[in-house]
Amino acid sequence: MSDERDDDFGEEAVDIRAIADHVVALAKAGEFEAIGDTYWDEEVISFEAGDGPMAVCDGIAAVRAKSEWWASAHEIHSGTADGPWVNGDQFAVRFIMDVTNKDSGQRIQMDEIALYTIDGGRIIEERFFY
Amino acid sequence: MSDERDDDFGEEAVDIRAIADHVVALAKAGEFEAIGDTYWDEEVISFEAGDGPMAVCDGIAAVRAKSEWWASAHEIHSGTADGPWVNGDQFAVRFIMDVTNKDSGQRIQMDEIALYTIDGGRIIEERFFY
Repeated sequence: MSDERDDDFGEEAVDIRAIADHVVALAKAGEFEAIGDTYWDEEVISFEAGDGPMAVCDGIAAVRAKSEWWASAHEIHSGTADGPWVNGDQFAVRFIMDVTNKDSGQRIQMDEIALYTIDGGRIIEERFFY
Repeated sequence: MSDERDDDFGEEAVDIRAIADHVVALAKAGEFEAIGDTYWDEEVISFEAGDGPMAVCDGIAAVRAKSEWWASAHEIHSGTADGPWVNGDQFAVRFIMDVTNKDSGQRIQMDEIALYTIDGGRIIEERFFY
């Protein structure tokens, strides 16, 4: 019996909490870009809470472009993460960041929850709450 | 024009952030039961992260029964809430509670994220992450 695998828990099985822990560890290390580089699916869709032109980014190219724009538009003084909190194929991470918007010069204490949905070990959806 | 209403923002318009703020205020005041009493829809569905018999509770009677079981099974020493974080018709609240399980005697520091989905001013779905 030991070499038989349950169909639901075979090679496709994904340890959501392990991915969630890794995402939090990357964020705590300041390696925010590595989260997407490691886990974004080609078909990832990303939802911001606002109404701007990047409120919905569909596909890894659009999501990467949003990420690169954000990184170029802000100076990050410090950032950390809290969590994760897991339910099924989803997990939440809290991001707290001290940033300055390079355009306006305004310094902002960001406090967001990111809700990630995982399929096949990849982030297929991310949704930001603030 | 002033007495015309956009169909999308007429009488049915709901201020999600106002509801979210009220839920957090109720939790901070320790009035956890009032959250459900005030906002649960008759058709609310509630998802826990675990696999227990109450992992999915469908309808206000089942959700209320779960809530009453939980309240009777735990002694709450203290509890508070953080947030809310909002996106569209959903918001997240962080609950931190110091409780003792009356059966086991075990004292637990609970740290959960609740994700609420609102329709017509009522909670139609709640999903707990831990």
